Order: sequence, then structure tokens, then C-alpha cells
Amino acid sequence: MRAARLHEYDEHLNVQLQLEDVPLPKITKPGDVIVRIGAAGLCRTDLHIIEGVWKDIQDPQRTLLPYILGHENAGWVEEVGPGVTSVKVGDPVICHPLRSCGVCLGCRRGEDMYCEHGSFPGLNCDGGFAEYMLTNERALIKLNPNVAPVDVAPLADAGITAYRVAKKAARKLNPGQYCVILGVGGLGHIALQSVRELCGARIIAIDRSEAARQLARNLGAHYVLDGSDTIVQEVKELTHGGAHVVIDFVGELGAEQVSWQMLRQGGTHFVVGYGGAVHVPTVHMIITEIAIEGSLVGNYVELVELMELNAEGRVKLHGQQYRLDQINQAIDDFKNRRIAGRAVIVP
Amino acid sequence: MRAARLHEYDEHLNVQLQLEDVPLPKITKPGDVIVRIGAAGLCRTDLHIIEGVWKDIQDPQRTLLPYILGHENAGWVEEVGPGVTSVKVGDPVICHPLRSCGVCLGCRRGEDMYCEHGSFPGLNCDGGFAEYMLTNERALIKLNPNVAPVDVAPLADAGITAYRVAKKAARKLNPGQYCVILGVGGLGHIALQSVRELCGARIIAIDRSEAARQLARNLGAHYVLDGSDTIVQEVKELTHGGAHVVIDFVGELGAEQVSWQMLRQGGTHFVVGYGGAVHVPTVHMIITEIAIEGSLVGNYVELVELMELNAEGRVKLHGQQYRLDQINQAIDDFKNRRIAGRAVIVP
Amino acid sequence: MRAARLHEYDEHLNVQLQLEDVPLPKITKPGDVIVRIGAAGLCRTDLHIIEGVWKDIQDPQRTLLPYILGHENAGWVEEVGPGVTSVKVGDPVICHPLRSCGVCLGCRRGEDMYCEHGSFPGLNCDGGFAEYMLTNERALIKLNPNVAPVDVAPLADAGITAYRVAKKAARKLNPGQYCVILGVGGLGHIALQSVRELCGARIIAIDRSEAARQLARNLGAHYVLDGSDTIVQEVKELTHGGAHVVIDFVGELGAEQVSWQMLRQGGTHFVVGYGGAVHVPTVHMIITEIAIEGSLVGNYVELVELMELNAEGRVKLHGQQYRLDQINQAIDDFKNRRIAGRAVIVP
Amino acid sequence: MRAARLHEYDEHLNVQLQLEDVPLPKITKPGDVIVRIGAAGLCRTDLHIIEGVWKDIQDPQRTLLPYILGHENAGWVEEVGPGVTSVKVGDPVICHPLRSCGVCLGCRRGEDMYCEHGSFPGLNCDGGFAEYMLTNERALIKLNPNVAPVDVAPLADAGITAYRVAKKAARKLNPGQYCVILGVGGLGHIALQSVRELCGARIIAIDRSEAARQLARNLGAHYVLDGSDTIVQEVKELTHGGAHVVIDFVGELGAEQVSWQMLRQGGTHFVVGYGGAVHVPTVHMIITEIAIEGSLVGNYVELVELMELNAEGRVKLHGQQYRLDQINQAIDDFKNRRIAGRAVIVP
Repeated sequence: MRAARLHEYDEHLNVQLQLEDVPLPKITKPGDVIVRIGAAGLCRTDLHIIEGVWKDIQDPQRTLLPYILGHENAGWVEEVGPGVTSVKVGDPVICHPLRSCGVCLGCRRGEDMYCEHGSFPGLNCDGGFAEYMLTNERALIKLNPNVAPVDVAPLADAGITAYRVAKKAARKLNPGQYCVILGVGGLGHIALQSVRELCGARIIAIDRSEAARQLARNLGAHYVLDGSDTIVQEVKELTHGGAHVVIDFVGELGAEQVSWQMLRQGGTHFVVGYGGAVHVPTVHMIITEIAIEGSLVGNYVELVELMELNAEGRVKLHGQQYRLDQINQAIDDFKNRRIAGRAVIVP
Repeated sequence: MRAARLHEYDEHLNVQLQLEDVPLPKITKPGDVIVRIGAAGLCRTDLHIIEGVWKDIQDPQRTLLPYILGHENAGWVEEVGPGVTSVKVGDPVICHPLRSCGVCLGCRRGEDMYCEHGSFPGLNCDGGFAEYMLTNERALIKLNPNVAPVDVAPLADAGITAYRVAKKAARKLNPGQYCVILGVGGLGHIALQSVRELCGARIIAIDRSEAARQLARNLGAHYVLDGSDTIVQEVKELTHGGAHVVIDFVGELGAEQVSWQMLRQGGTHFVVGYGGAVHVPTVHMIITEIAIEGSLVGNYVELVELMELNAEGRVKLHGQQYRLDQINQAIDDFKNRRIAGRAVIVP
Repeated sequence: MRAARLHEYDEHLNVQLQLEDVPLPKITKPGDVIVRIGAAGLCRTDLHIIEGVWKDIQDPQRTLLPYILGHENAGWVEEVGPGVTSVKVGDPVICHPLRSCGVCLGCRRGEDMYCEHGSFPGLNCDGGFAEYMLTNERALIKLNPNVAPVDVAPLADAGITAYRVAKKAARKLNPGQYCVILGVGGLGHIALQSVRELCGARIIAIDRSEAARQLARNLGAHYVLDGSDTIVQEVKELTHGGAHVVIDFVGELGAEQVSWQMLRQGGTHFVVGYGGAVHVPTVHMIITEIAIEGSLVGNYVELVELMELNAEGRVKLHGQQYRLDQINQAIDDFKNRRIAGRAVIVP
Repeated sequence: MRAARLHEYDEHLNVQLQLEDVPLPKITKPGDVIVRIGAAGLCRTDLHIIEGVWKDIQDPQRTLLPYILGHENAGWVEEVGPGVTSVKVGDPVICHPLRSCGVCLGCRRGEDMYCEHGSFPGLNCDGGFAEYMLTNERALIKLNPNVAPVDVAPLADAGITAYRVAKKAARKLNPGQYCVILGVGGLGHIALQSVRELCGARIIAIDRSEAARQLARNLGAHYVLDGSDTIVQEVKELTHGGAHVVIDFVGELGAEQVSWQMLRQGGTHFVVGYGGAVHVPTVHMIITEIAIEGSLVGNYVELVELMELNAEGRVKLHGQQYRLDQINQAIDDFKNRRIAGRAVIVP
């Protein structure tokens, strides 16, 4: 089959994925499933993988290369292992990014991301920038017949990361309270819609790009700010003392520090974007009684819930399509911020 | 001042409130506040009080009559006791129905309705069908300058009863799950809007009146049913196994029994309407692991939250105005279901 | 292998289980596991099964008989299917009662009892009153090396039913508050210890048997009552207004009605025992704002937690051993309340 | 009356409190209460106040000096304002440290520490190192007749700070999981007992002092470590991957950094001690999905709960008594770690 593989890490992103013919994946375990890829989202993490940011975590032995990236996948069931009962050949599906075991305590608690024996196609084994991909039964959610893989693939990772943190935020927010969304990009615009649907709080969207701010307005943000140097003061005034929740999708370049400074007493700063470091005096944490919480990709049940919101048109995603043989063009466009919404690769 | 007082209980509702001149209320405690009534909602509980349903609970010594009904009040601060600091004469306010003490454990936990020393104007002391009413500082929420008392008075009791149960329901509901609202009247239509704003669940509204069903559709119910004899089966099919939450605003005439039968495993039936009795075999409760929960009027913080949703136009209330000297006409119209929305008495 | 099988239902319990040689169970699915039984608890549900109470639910087609009862099992792994990775032959294990699928939404949420494709050995397929039993990998928890199957088998069902409700209760209880445990038998004595370990509430144990009351005292109940006709009044006085939680392990003979009457405002009545029916006026539910909740057998994670408490000696179970060929004697002793603690069948 | 007043800040603690005669406090508001001090705990925060650490927060106008320290107070009601109903002259009481208003949203939510109009005797107005102190009705909890003020005074601040964080921790901990308590001093030893009473987790106590470690063993810690340089590795091994909760009562000198490093995926680091700063890369927060949460002094309801645990002997406090005229000796002993348990000043 055709696939786009990474052959070397390069911190300057000066490498291209190689389009080549590779063997088809094979079913070896009872729960295995091969999915014919209908679409695969392109994620900033793909760029970070190429840059080598993840190599010490996902590829400590340096035995992974060459391999196929792509961890936001949807398509159709092509072949199933002998233990599979819940899907059949031809079913349209979206793939939760984790191939989880279903037996360890992480899985038993519903937190698939904590699976002790899981793999993550596109990160530590072959992913979906190809015609076919190997995953397992536990990763699959059947699509509603009127939903096309190409319209939802990025929900598989970007979507549930945004939805998970939005759901955590909504649990802490009541009507009249304030939620700051810092960064209205691929994740932020999903989070904004999710917070809007999950609670009665007021949303303050912050982004330095006017296009992103316009998107935020269209999606129902109550206030939209441009993230100037006085942003902490602006938010404190607007909220009469500070936001109840701040969700930081940037996580670097200073955003990670202004985030907790925008909180009121008892507030929560969720960290989703990464790159920088949070540095906060303990006396400040105590007096203000704030919390700073990391948030990871969502679990299977969260993807089910997000797909329901999407099927009802309450949370939408706009993507720009590329053919598989245009993938290096897509990466280049992404690097240079020439993509509106999310790039989706269609084999 | 002019006031409408109840002089005797009558189970057939064949009595009229007496319009008469009564002494002005007096401030006797440091936290007392006298409110000039701008509007007072007429509630089904007023009819039940007249019928004597509440006399053994609120008037066990039969010393209460004659007294002034009206427990959904809004207006302007007229006079304040020496300990009052948070409101001043002239402030427009809505009155939480409880005059709570602020010192007992119920109050300390934020559950004003559990106050050990509270009184409830309009139930066990003089209420708001009058020109002035005595309450206390802890009952008052200042109105946004662009909100008129007449537009919000019924939120003080009907509103927060509906909002409180909607908030409890929303905590149990995720996107794709189903919430049944049984009875789309004065409380039900507020609950419907509140559930819609507080979570991503699908709402099934049930009412035997076509006008109520039309209101439910306008307010965003996903499904609207007419409550026929096959309602349990209809809901089970529509929801693929049963609703996750049922909120029963009827509580009698069989509604209280079909409510828990519409649930799926693990579901919750909230009881808000009253009159009948729930009768359920213990083996059914265990196998299905359902919960049946009573829900009372909301607390002060819940009224604050509801006022925020109202101020933003996310939860609306439509009322029909009557002058204080038309109050017996209003009661008669209410009895005979000739009122669209909520009757509001304006002195 | 030797097994004790039920050949007919009899509502008067005048039948005996037949001890006979039956074929060994066979592995047919990748996740199947055969367990060599070390011990199997005898449960009141076994008597109810023989009486036919469960036949319409678990055996609607009347195709189940003859079959092997026994749903509280522990032993050693004898053989594993090709997909099994987390246990190996020889491992000592306790068996969660459900053979769950791991794929449906019930399983994904961690609520194995809600599995859409599960089976329940000893209820709707062959159980553990035998030398070997078929279950699956997802049902198994490895035992600590110093724990013998015979000492823990009843924790697999009675134990986690008690633990699950105790955990729910503990979430609602704070220091100084009151938890009533109604019935200190096989489940009640586990619940009592679990509540004691999980929160700082005061425990009121009620039982008509002096032996049970003595057990309650030994296990740390703060108050022990005998369940006389004035029990509601006694509890209200002792608790200065009513209990915060009542856990009813009887569920019939009037216990199910006194349970909710013992609550204070905002309290919760958990239904675990069954047989009778709860009958409560809706107006009472609203004024008191009480909740009545059914509670089922616990999930896998709850069994893991209970095994931890047991391994540390914080929750203990006393059993009386019978050989497999004495099983009808054990049933007779159980019927006639001649067993102290829990009967355990050892093949 | 006699009182010990601070006349100047000194960062080297080279000042003494002045013992002098000062006017008696006066009742000016309806809810005011004057308490005859029975005992007042000496807290590390008193040292910090003297050092000037809090002057910019509590005394920004530098108008406070000279004033009376002491914020952990218990005694007897001496005089009450005209609005007071829940206590009477002669009642033994413990004083919650905040004089809260009971009207603002912070108070309405039960979080007295967030009161918008509160004062904090001993921090920003006269405290309890004196014969009498002014507070208000909302601050008072009546003592059980068999409890003496001298035995409980430090629970008023140190106690509820420890209890509040222990209660938060217990909500996140299940049997078999691990809670690290870093620092077994005045707060840590109360937290250790509280965690032990509120959940079934295993407790790992860490302290560099052998006396503190011995205390931890006596109070039921499951593991006791000495906090060497390899502490992170030791905890990770002992817990098979990291602690579920770490409560840091040190907050400086490196403790604030090892705390979050000891967590497993999904774990929570509670910050209670202060002085240093938390510095953590955002990528670490995301991959591990940890939370870092500040925790403040507890609210009134939490003090009620702690008093219940104390009255039952489940959480105990050992104090060393000093007369009011020995207060500078007490401060000196505290500075030089010559006090076992908590110093309590008795006027």
C-alpha cells in the first residue's frame, strides 16, 4: 500500500515524509482490526515528532524509524481478528488514538490513555498517513451513517483533547462565571464550542490572530481579546476579580505564566499547550488557593460524547483536504500558518 | 397599606382573598429589610395553601390567619435595619423566598432552605400580595439596572425550583444522553431552558397540552411527546433503552409512577411535582440501580446563577400581569388554566 | 468433574442440588480462562435462584436447567485462551462475578455490571459449585500470595455489593454525621467495616439478632439498636433529627419503609436488600428532599479496592467451610440460620 | 486588659511582643461577640507576621501597629451584640479565624475564607494573645461541655488548614492508593490523622526529624521515610509508579519541587507550606496529567467536622502551655524548635 513514512528526525523540519509502497499491516491478535483510511488529520504533534521532540519518550531505543505518522484517523473496517464482535467489515469508524488492552486498571477506570500496555499508532507504531492501518476493536466507534470520515477524523485526537479539558472546566463553572480560552486554534475552537454547550459560563477568547478572533466571535465567545501585554489586567477588570477557569492551549512564550495570573481566588488553570514551564510561588498558590492542572487526550467515552455533539451539529470542525501525495505540501502549509482550520489527509 | 389576605382555608378553593388596609410591616431586627413590592408571582402552591394542604406543616397552631400570601417577590428596598450593609434604600431587588439566619449549619452549607430558624414570607408569615413586605438582607439579590421586577418575580420560587433540579440533572447528563421533562408548565419550561444551557443532553418534553408542547418545541426540546398511555414504551424506544434522567413536575395522577419506569439502568427520577405517591418494588430498584430523588426550592446562590442566565437572555419567563385588586380573578384564571405562562400581581 | 447442579426450581426450597459428574468446561474464545475452584461462597441469591425468583430474568426461555450455581468464586488459573496476557496457569485469583465484554459503553465506563454482552456464572450459566469453572480474563484479580481463596471467595459478590454501597454512602457522609446500617448479616457486616474505613461518620447498626448486634459492636459500630417498633423515633432522637444515610440490607418486611422515615432532610436511603416495595408520598420526598437509591453488585475496580482493604486486615470476612458433597447441608443450615458468617463451599 | 502587642516588624525576629494594659474591645455591630480567651495557639504565621512577610498583604497602609497577634483562639462568650441568637454569655467556644459577613457570595457558598468583607483577628486586627478578643457570632462553634479551650485552640487554624487539605485528598484516594505527607509537624500530624480517618489509602509520612517520624508511626502512617536525596525514587518504588496524592507542608527548600515529581500519572500535589516556588515544565504536566493545587485555611463547616473528630478522640492535638507573660519565651522556643507539638498561650 502507499504510505508516507518518516525516515529521520530533524529539529529544523527540513525533512520530507517519503511516499513509498510498504507491506499491508497484518492481524496477529484476536482483537486486531485493519481500517481502510478515509481521512487522517495533520496535527502539530506530527511536526513535533518530526522535530524529534517526542523521540526520547516514544522511541527511546531509536528502532522506530522509518514509520508512518498520522494519529487522527477515520475510515472503514477492512478486516477483523477472530475475537472481534462489535464491528464488521465495511463499517465506517473513527479511531480513538490509543490501542488499549482493556484489562489493566487504567482501562478498567475508563482512562484509556493510562493503559499500561497500550500503543499509539502514529506516535510509537505505524499510523494513518497510508491506505490502511492496524488498530484494535477497543479503539473503534462506529460512525453515524450520515457522517463521512473526512469530516471527523481530527476529532480523534485534537477534538477529544479539547473536549476533555472543556468537560473538566464545565464541572467547575456556573452561570455568570468566566472561562478564558487562550488560543483559538485547532484545539481551542473545539474547546470553545464544547464549553458553550456544556455549561452556562461566559467565555473570554484570547488570540493574537484576527482570523482566530473572528472565528471565536462566530462560535459564540462572549468576549474576545487580542492578548496584549495588559491581558492580565484586562481579564481581571472584565471579570471583576479574575477568571474562574483559564484553559491554556499555548503553553509557551509566556502564555503559561499569564494564565494563572488571570485567575481569581479558587480558580483553575488547565495546561494543554506545551513548550514552556509554569513557575509560581507557593505563597501565591496558597493565598489564592488556585489549582494548575495538566490535561491529556480524552478517553473513549469522551470521544463517543464528542461524536454525539458533532452529529447534532453542536460542535463543528472545518478542515482543508490534501491528497496523501500532497502531504509534504500540507506540512509546509501548516508550518507557515497557511491553513484555515485543520488539514486532513485523504489517501 | 393595601394587601390581599387569606382569612380561611377551603379545600374547594371557594374563598376569596380579602383586599384590605393593613398596618405597614416594621423593622425589628438588625438585618431586617422592607421591600416595596414591584411584582409578586402567583404559584400553584398559593392555591394549595388556600386549600389547606400546607396548614398542618406551616400553620400547626392555626394562629396564622388572616395573613398575606405571595412568595415570589421582587421590588425596591424601602427601609433597612441597622445591621444591613449590602443593599440601600432604592435598590431594585429580587427576594429569595427564605429569610434565613446565616448562622445554622444549613445556612453555612449554602442550603438556605434547610435553615433551622428561617421563615418563608407568603407561607408562614406575611408575603408579597401587598404594597410592602418584610424580609431580611440575606434574602436579597440586587437586580441588574436593565431588569424590571415585574419581569423576574416568579424566578424567586418557581424559577429556582426548576433551576435547582435542572442543575442536579445536568451533573448526571452527558452529550448523547436523554433527559425527560414531564410537564412543561411554569416550572417545566424554566427547567427545559436550564437543562439546555447546562449540558449537552437531548431533551424529551412531555405534556398533554398542545400549547405546552408548542412552547417546548420553541424552547429547543429535541423531542416532544403527548404523554399517551404508551409513553413508557415510546421513551424506551426513542432512547434505545430508557432515559438517563426523568424530571417529574407533575407528581400525581400516575406521572409519578411512569417516571421511574422510563429510566434506563443507573438512571435518576427527580420528583418535583407532588400529590401522589411513588410505589416501587425494591428488587426493581436494585436490578436497575435507579435513584428517586426529591428536589426542593433552590438556594440563594442558585437564584444568583439563574438571574445571570436570565440577564443574558438564556432563560426567559413570560408572565401575564394582574393588578393587586384583580388577584381573585388571577386565581380563578389560574384554576381554570386560562393563563399562558405565569400570572404576576402588580400592586 | 464433580459439580452440584440445580435440576428444577422449587419455591419451597424442597429440592436438592444434584452432585454428579459433568464434562469439563472448554475454552472457546480468545479471552476465556478456566479456573480450578478453591472456594465458592453460598449466597442468599442461591436460595432465591432455587426458589425461582430469578427464573424470569435469568432463564426466560427455561433452557438453563440443569446448571451449576455458585457466583462467589476464587481459585487458581487452570487454562487460558490464546488472547489472555495478564494471568498465567497457576495464578491464584478471585473472580469478579461478571464475564464482561470490555467493549460496550457500560464496560468502558467501568461499570461491568452494565455490560451489554456479559454473562454471570452461577446465575445464567455454569458457576463455581464444581471443581472447575469457565470465566474470562477480565473477571480475574490476582491474589496476594499470602491470601488463600477460601478466605476471600465471598468477597467476589457479597463483599463488593456491600463495599459499593458503603463507598457511595461515604461520599455523602462527613465527620459527626450518622449512617444507619439496617441488617448486620453477610453484606451488612462488610458494609459496616467499609463505612468505618472510608469516612468519619458515626455508625448506627440495627439488627434483631443479638449475635448480629454483638458482631456490630465488635466491628466498631458507634450505636447498636435492636430494631423495635419505635426504631424511627429512636434514630431521630439519637441523631438529633434523622440519619444522613440509611443502608437497608433487608429490603422487605417493613424495613424498606422505616428506612426512609429515619432520614433527616437531604438524606439518602440506599436499597440493597429486596423483596418488599418502597411506597412514599411525593410531597414527603420534596419537603425532606430525600433520595432513595438502588445499589447493585460492585464493579471490578471496587473488587480490587476491597481486596486491598482485606489484604491489610481492615475489612475481614469470617466463613464456615463445607465440602462440595455437603452443599445441601450448607443450604439447609443457611435456610435455618445455623451459620455464623458466610458458608464457603470447598471442592 | 493585659495583651501582648507587636510594635514593629523585624525580619530577623529580634523584637519582642510588648505586654501591656490596653482598653477592652467594644461591641459596635449587632453580630459582635467578645470572647474571654481560654487559650490561643502560637503559629508559624505569627513568626512570619513579626518578620513582616505579611505586612504588604495585611497591613498595606502601615496603620496596624501596634496590635495583638493570636489567631487560634478558644474561650468563653463574655458579651454579645444585640443581633446574636445562637450563643449566650458563658458558652465555651472555639473561634473560626475569620469574622465573615454572611452575605457575600463567598460566604453564601460556605467558603468563609473568601469573604469579601471579612477580617482576620490576629492578622489584620486585634487577636487572642490577650484576656479578651472581639469577633462575631458567625465565627463561633460551641464546645462540647467536656472539651476545654486549652485542648483545642490550635484546631482553629492549624487544625482546619490540615483538615481541609486532608478532606480534599481523601476525595481523590481509594483503598490501596498512596498519600504522601511531607512534613509531620503542627499541621502534618493533624492531616495524617485526618487522612487516616477519611479514606482507606496508605499513608507515607516523610520528615527529616526522628521525633516527627516517631510521631507519624504512632499515629498510624503505613510507611515512614526520612526525606533523603533519593526520596523521589524511594516513593516511586514503594508505590509502584508514584503516589496518587502528595501533601506538601513544607513548601520551600526543595520540598515544593520533589512533591510533584513523586506523583504518578493523574496524581495531585497539594501545596500548603510556603516560601519557595513550584517550577514545572508544561510538557510534564500534560504527559503525566498531574494537578498542583494550593490549599488555604478551612471553612466553618470544616471546623465543625474537625471538632467532631476531636471530640470522638479520632484526631488529637498535643500542646505545650505557656502563660501570656511567657509569650516571648514561647516564641523563642518555637524559633529554636524546642517545642513538642503546639505552643498554647493561656492568659
